[in-house]
Amino acid sequence: MLLQVNCAGYVKSQYMQHDASKYSYGPNIEAKTFMMPEQEFYAHHPGRFFYIKEENKDSLISIPFAPVKSQLESFEFSVGQNDICWRIKHGGLKYKISLQLAKEDVVELWSLKIINQTNKVKKINVYPYFSIGYMSWMNQSASFSSELNGIIASSIAPYQKTEDYYKQKDFKDLTFLLSNKKIDSYCAQLAAFEGTNGLHNPEALKQEILNNDSANYQTPAAILHHHIEINPKKETQLNYLFGPAKDIEDVKQFKRFYFEQNETASSKLKFDAFKTASMTGPDVLQIETPDPDFDRFVNQWLPRQVYYHGRVNRMTSDPQTRNYLQDNLGMCYLDSNATRHALVKALSQQFRSGAMPDGILLNPKAELKYINQIPHTDHCVWLPLLLEVYLDEMNDYQLLEEKIPYADCSDRHTVREHIERSIIWLVNARDERGLSYIEQGDWCDPMNMVGVKGIGVSSWLSVATAYSLNVWAKICRQSGKEDKAEDLIEKAQEINKAVNDYCWIDGWYARGITDNGRVFGTSDDEEGKIYLNPQSWAMLSGAADSVKMNQLLEAIEANLETPDGVMMLAPSYTQMVEDIGRITQKFPGVAENGSVYNHAAAFYAYSLYQQNYSDKAFRVLRTMIPDGSNIERRGQLPLFVPNYYRGAYHQLPEVAGRSSQLINTGTTAWYYRCVIENLCGLKGSQGDLLVNPQLPSHWNIMQVTRRFKEATFNMQVERDENVVSQQVYLDNKLLDTAKVTNIQPGKEYQLRVLIPIVNENKFV
Amino acid sequence: MLLQVNCAGYVKSQYMQHDASKYSYGPNIEAKTFMMPEQEFYAHHPGRFFYIKEENKDSLISIPFAPVKSQLESFEFSVGQNDICWRIKHGGLKYKISLQLAKEDVVELWSLKIINQTNKVKKINVYPYFSIGYMSWMNQSASFSSELNGIIASSIAPYQKTEDYYKQKDFKDLTFLLSNKKIDSYCAQLAAFEGTNGLHNPEALKQEILNNDSANYQTPAAILHHHIEINPKKETQLNYLFGPAKDIEDVKQFKRFYFEQNETASSKLKFDAFKTASMTGPDVLQIETPDPDFDRFVNQWLPRQVYYHGRVNRMTSDPQTRNYLQDNLGMCYLDSNATRHALVKALSQQFRSGAMPDGILLNPKAELKYINQIPHTDHCVWLPLLLEVYLDEMNDYQLLEEKIPYADCSDRHTVREHIERSIIWLVNARDERGLSYIEQGDWCDPMNMVGVKGIGVSSWLSVATAYSLNVWAKICRQSGKEDKAEDLIEKAQEINKAVNDYCWIDGWYARGITDNGRVFGTSDDEEGKIYLNPQSWAMLSGAADSVKMNQLLEAIEANLETPDGVMMLAPSYTQMVEDIGRITQKFPGVAENGSVYNHAAAFYAYSLYQQNYSDKAFRVLRTMIPDGSNIERRGQLPLFVPNYYRGAYHQLPEVAGRSSQLINTGTTAWYYRCVIENLCGLKGSQGDLLVNPQLPSHWNIMQVTRRFKEATFNMQVERDENVVSQQVYLDNKLLDTAKVTNIQPGKEYQLRVLIPIVNENKFV
Repeated sequence: MLLQVNCAGYVKSQYMQHDASKYSYGPNIEAKTFMMPEQEFYAHHPGRFFYIKEENKDSLISIPFAPVKSQLESFEFSVGQNDICWRIKHGGLKYKISLQLAKEDVVELWSLKIINQTNKVKKINVYPYFSIGYMSWMNQSASFSSELNGIIASSIAPYQKTEDYYKQKDFKDLTFLLSNKKIDSYCAQLAAFEGTNGLHNPEALKQEILNNDSANYQTPAAILHHHIEINPKKETQLNYLFGPAKDIEDVKQFKRFYFEQNETASSKLKFDAFKTASMTGPDVLQIETPDPDFDRFVNQWLPRQVYYHGRVNRMTSDPQTRNYLQDNLGMCYLDSNATRHALVKALSQQFRSGAMPDGILLNPKAELKYINQIPHTDHCVWLPLLLEVYLDEMNDYQLLEEKIPYADCSDRHTVREHIERSIIWLVNARDERGLSYIEQGDWCDPMNMVGVKGIGVSSWLSVATAYSLNVWAKICRQSGKEDKAEDLIEKAQEINKAVNDYCWIDGWYARGITDNGRVFGTSDDEEGKIYLNPQSWAMLSGAADSVKMNQLLEAIEANLETPDGVMMLAPSYTQMVEDIGRITQKFPGVAENGSVYNHAAAFYAYSLYQQNYSDKAFRVLRTMIPDGSNIERRGQLPLFVPNYYRGAYHQLPEVAGRSSQLINTGTTAWYYRCVIENLCGLKGSQGDLLVNPQLPSHWNIMQVTRRFKEATFNMQVERDENVVSQQVYLDNKLLDTAKVTNIQPGKEYQLRVLIPIVNENKFV
Repeated sequence: MLLQVNCAGYVKSQYMQHDASKYSYGPNIEAKTFMMPEQEFYAHHPGRFFYIKEENKDSLISIPFAPVKSQLESFEFSVGQNDICWRIKHGGLKYKISLQLAKEDVVELWSLKIINQTNKVKKINVYPYFSIGYMSWMNQSASFSSELNGIIASSIAPYQKTEDYYKQKDFKDLTFLLSNKKIDSYCAQLAAFEGTNGLHNPEALKQEILNNDSANYQTPAAILHHHIEINPKKETQLNYLFGPAKDIEDVKQFKRFYFEQNETASSKLKFDAFKTASMTGPDVLQIETPDPDFDRFVNQWLPRQVYYHGRVNRMTSDPQTRNYLQDNLGMCYLDSNATRHALVKALSQQFRSGAMPDGILLNPKAELKYINQIPHTDHCVWLPLLLEVYLDEMNDYQLLEEKIPYADCSDRHTVREHIERSIIWLVNARDERGLSYIEQGDWCDPMNMVGVKGIGVSSWLSVATAYSLNVWAKICRQSGKEDKAEDLIEKAQEINKAVNDYCWIDGWYARGITDNGRVFGTSDDEEGKIYLNPQSWAMLSGAADSVKMNQLLEAIEANLETPDGVMMLAPSYTQMVEDIGRITQKFPGVAENGSVYNHAAAFYAYSLYQQNYSDKAFRVLRTMIPDGSNIERRGQLPLFVPNYYRGAYHQLPEVAGRSSQLINTGTTAWYYRCVIENLCGLKGSQGDLLVNPQLPSHWNIMQVTRRFKEATFNMQVERDENVVSQQVYLDNKLLDTAKVTNIQPGKEYQLRVLIPIVNENKFV
């Protein structure tokens, strides 16, 4: 279940029912599609609101803010670990609205507390209005149930094919709004509520008592009415449940569970119970640095976003293969068992040829949708990368010998053989120059016409393949396959050489060579002159030597850096380039067309850390978190890393920096990896824990607690003018090599790391 | 191009670009789907509005009404033959808004005339706001062009598959709003215009001059600003063009064509030119009866709706086969060449087996969508029915010998053979009882589970097959194939007998027998007890003898008749019946689940006329036209027959009668046929014109002008107490047989028909 809540009361809510489903819709028939970037709010956008009207007074407000949007005397919107709260003062009353989610059930738990701050009795009418919207053209209605004390909207999820009847017959096609307090009147029909006026001034609220309208194939809405008297200095609390259900029995159970027998005391208990039900995975990392905003993000919000990706798979039943693998790379730090399962699931959908499918089907009803219907060539790249993290964390090399099936044949082969096949597939999918074919796209989905004829190649995919080979070589070496490792490294070097021969042009790596032999992503291009990914991955793969690395870093700085992060390419395309494709048709500065695409920026940060550019790497990570200086421009709170911030910084400065508002992003896994393995420098390796924190030069101190192999590591990092290189003390004893060996589950280790005053010499 | 305009200024606009496309959208990403019944309006529903604000005054209005929705001093909404007008008076000003469409171009032509009725100079600010909405997640923007003096919104129609790029690259992805008068300021971005407030009180209008905002991947909008001074008793006119375009060159051409060189005089001319460009086909029928509202509908609106169906094919590139054939049955009276083409097109997509596809593909890019992906068994039935009308109108029996191909083989066979094959297909698709298999649906699309196993049968399809055989027999006889005709009639009788044996239960025909052998649509059923279609078609096919006919008519009257027409079934289903299917899941009283489904009602009217139930038949037709007594309940003007009015009259009386607002309906062809061939009684037959008007008994007079075979027939019908049966005078000479023979093109014939005082004896 996923709620995106804005301070005015607008809410996007989705939950998994085979695929992402809704129970509160827009006013018209919406497309079933993926989440849209930067989608704006509008008058009938789904939301949860409370209209408030004092008895015998005309003035109407709504809280938290919409739809009436009148100026409130005071307003506070706060996002806690397990709830979202508004605290509002207006007209002698104090309101606290709070929203929580249940741990397992798909249900929103709302409470509204009203405190009379005056010395008179306050008589007010409260009208919760929870939007339901256009549910279905086949069948939609809503009415009040006095047994349930709430509004039940019914629908039939639209379909036309008989087979879909069987797929959908158990769908949760009801939406309910229940109150724990007896209501005085209600309205279950949007048009009857609004009348001619509209939501900002509903006609139904011209009188105190609502008309008790039902909706009969009319747009449903859930509006309840409570007439309330509050004595001076006293308070009252109203609780509501809102969500989807399969049938009335389902709703009854919600009522029983969350609104027990006798009113507030126990129901309050039930509500409070959820405050302690953590929505994230276990705490694996806590940091304390000179940057408390960064700490808050890393300790509290980042693991939650990582966990969301690993647990919910971006609210889809067919996550794109590269996303599924990378999301589980991040998940590995929180729940490595989940990662193991995911890897096995993915590999069991591999083809015998070694090729990976475009999406991983998570349930029997799932099918490849949207972008997963277009073939991409990079999916195999991510297998060794995920495996590396899993093995470093778990030291579970047995996994390599586990036998699993293929999608297209019943033979079961070891994970090792599966990976080998994917490597062979990658190595073979290259042209006579040794560069990787891109076909209809690599990591960059909309780069669909570079190689549509089967000739064009991708420099990024080439270096990514080389890097993947190197990583697999490392794993082979660690699992006793030295010979194999040497072959792989040789092959990776051959690829790196090809990339250097054909794609290094005038100071940076081009992005590829099209079907027609045109090298693009070079200074010859007026738009799309330079792309970030080939540079980052050439640093990872070893293609870039130190001379090239300096040059490409200069080129990135000159062309791609902005106050909101590093753009994925520049300048953004402003017109279609038919031998590049759909990416060039996206709006300039949006998504892959030159936004600050944080997934690419995270790759860059990771590659910088590998080369000890700790300051530069940290700046990339830190810039992803909105803060005071940019929060208004970005339009986003520092609670998650968005898929992108608008780029095209020099082309469209007035909109640069705007957040996409999309929480789905491959960024988080790499961000968490950078923080754990590089910034904190606590990285697993064959059962041991390597210690090598990479602090930005302006930090002199850092405290870290990390869980690893069921032990706890407390690390204190300090700059010390007396050391010239890092010194690591374990339980006060200086270590020869910076690693903790023979780790005991349950044990707590104290690490102290001294580092020189400035440990960053490379250009900052 | 299709515009549906409501009096408040909300507009649904679509045009054909491969398939139905939009240029003015909702505020969120809308599903691309068929038209939705009873879709409600909402604050950001697409529309065309003019905000008006007097200089230095605060009060803001919008005309015609939304979004501000303030009370206006006077308001008139009128729909003319070629324009839609609003006339509004408010604050000393008179406004006339008028909308016309161009004959060929996809463009809306708007004019706003403002007349100063006072004795003072009026200084006002006019802000046309034309909604553009959420165009595309790939790319959307809008800005002002001073060269064009208008706002141009650009987008890329979203896609992901490379092949779609080639399909869509020439799409009209621009939306423009041009003004013929220089503007003073503008806003091209919805959020910037609304600010926090919303459309009912846009923040941008707090000041006089707009901020000239562009939209850069923000929701576009088209808002212009004119500051205008009008002298006492003087007027001013503003003209606007709104529509889609492929590129700027396109827009320039619109500007040149509709806004010539030098301002009002000539541009007004251009605008006026379209007033005379009739949107309908030629006038083929004019009537004058004692019922002027009925005359207006039949003379003016009905042929337009018929023409729309025949010309635009319901705004789709894959009209459902039965719709395509019936729509062209209606078109035959207006443009019989179009019908001929359509019949040939349809038959050339027939399979060699005789089966017809579920939809007819109108262009090479077309593909079967939505309901056309589900197989239906009735499509062959409509071929002889269409052919009958075509031959009666045109006497073009040569068509039968024309050779045309199949979908699945290159042989070319005569139309006659194509029809024979369809007949054989129908005759074979029956079970051992002689009843027609229904499989996943017949005429009734959502009756998808009666025969999903391949066993269930349809009584309607059985009698429809028998009727179709009889009609084909008639054609065979008329084209010299007597033997063939006899076989067909014999087969039809056999089918009729089977229906009588197995489906006549207790006073009416059941609807079918399910896969499990359950007869349904009988008095044993609590819901779906009786269906209209099997009764009507049993009257047509000859299955029902006079005894049965009386019984079934009584059953219809008792169970199906309502003040808003005859329901298609009753009682409406309120829960899923798994051996009937999706129809039972539709909302009670909506669409096929027991609405007054006008297509079925028109069949009923036609069948009543064949049996000389002229009063009953007329009442069915007349009730389809909204009038004073029901117009508010129906919520529709008498300008078209909707797909349905809500039924479930006894179950949900409070919403019964509501119009679906859908203009797509098979009703119109049959309605027009009933009026021409039965009510007026002027029907072609092998080159002659039969004369047999069937007036309702409360009419004593009727005048008709009909074009037939390029001649004109003026007919005067009168009741005369001296006649006991119809007497027909042609140019004052009494005819022996009531038909005009040897018709000369271009000639005008005068018919005078005397009929007895009451010619309706059957129960009224």
